[in-house]
Amino acid sequence: MQYPDHLLKLIAVFKKLPGIGAKSAERFAFHLLDWPEEKLVEMSRTIEETSQKLTHCSECGCLMDAKRCAFCTSSHRNPELLCIVASSKDVFLIEQTHEFRGLYHVLGGLLSPLQGMAPAPQAIENLKKRVQKLDVQEMILALDSTLEGDATALYLKKELESLNVITSRLALGLPMGSSLDFIDGGTLARALAGRRSY
Amino acid sequence: MQYPDHLLKLIAVFKKLPGIGAKSAERFAFHLLDWPEEKLVEMSRTIEETSQKLTHCSECGCLMDAKRCAFCTSSHRNPELLCIVASSKDVFLIEQTHEFRGLYHVLGGLLSPLQGMAPAPQAIENLKKRVQKLDVQEMILALDSTLEGDATALYLKKELESLNVITSRLALGLPMGSSLDFIDGGTLARALAGRRSY
Repeated sequence: MQYPDHLLKLIAVFKKLPGIGAKSAERFAFHLLDWPEEKLVEMSRTIEETSQKLTHCSECGCLMDAKRCAFCTSSHRNPELLCIVASSKDVFLIEQTHEFRGLYHVLGGLLSPLQGMAPAPQAIENLKKRVQKLDVQEMILALDSTLEGDATALYLKKELESLNVITSRLALGLPMGSSLDFIDGGTLARALAGRRSY
Repeated sequence: MQYPDHLLKLIAVFKKLPGIGAKSAERFAFHLLDWPEEKLVEMSRTIEETSQKLTHCSECGCLMDAKRCAFCTSSHRNPELLCIVASSKDVFLIEQTHEFRGLYHVLGGLLSPLQGMAPAPQAIENLKKRVQKLDVQEMILALDSTLEGDATALYLKKELESLNVITSRLALGLPMGSSLDFIDGGTLARALAGRRSY
């Protein structure tokens, strides 16, 4: 006795979500069977409307709700400070710190030398043009401290060297509330090298 | 900087899935932002069509794809053997064993004395009528070996006592491939009590 066709379709659809395998997808699908029609319609509509209701700013790549990008059109932000992030989600993470009042530039992904993810020449061209247009004084590379993040940072630094803009990267060190006991050697070494006067 | 409205809506929708908290829902929502329109439409349609394409048999409660229940209308199954399960998912689990050729009866849930889930009198009435109509000889209670499963089994046994049908429950014992070292005392005690000649 196989699952009915539509149930298999529903499971297949949920399996496309990140981190969701066959078991979880099955659980979601069976859960939906108990939902009233209006709850199904609400979920379905919300998903379908996503591509119309949410777009990325053509200038900075940030997520936009309305017609205009809240960052690019803001007069309260310093355009000479440009924070470069991998994804539009990172923008919200940095905004939550309330520590940054410049503009953002979303790359849309990191280089992955191991997976053969090469840099898109057009993306670099756009970034260069934007740096010149905004007359950026400092570029903050807010990238993951992973192999991919390191590769991307190195690549961007080289590519943008000719623009003579101060380039910085997020500090590497101990996360808040951590004990030295549980910190890996690499992090500790970077935290030592990056020590600050106190 | 808050998430855009539609993103919050999308996150709220995913949080309704079982076992999905704020973090996973956010991950799903951001993942969907990168999907092409047709993939969003496919997911949305599949979810919306669920209530039309999948129904439960009014007789046995099993999941149906087409107009007729594959179990109730089958001439290859023994109607005198009735397997009582909590949910329509359990039916597929038992079918996968290829060990049961009778009919099913889906309760739609277990009694939960602690959470105040009382038995639905109508459900018991339906089950009684069905047992009499099918002239059931043996009722197999294929319920969880949990507090809720035990409570439901006990309740059903009492309610259906008057019908004079043999009632059995799934064996309690060691799961396949388990080592005694890792088995809890309760399971071991039940496995001992239920030992079989060898």
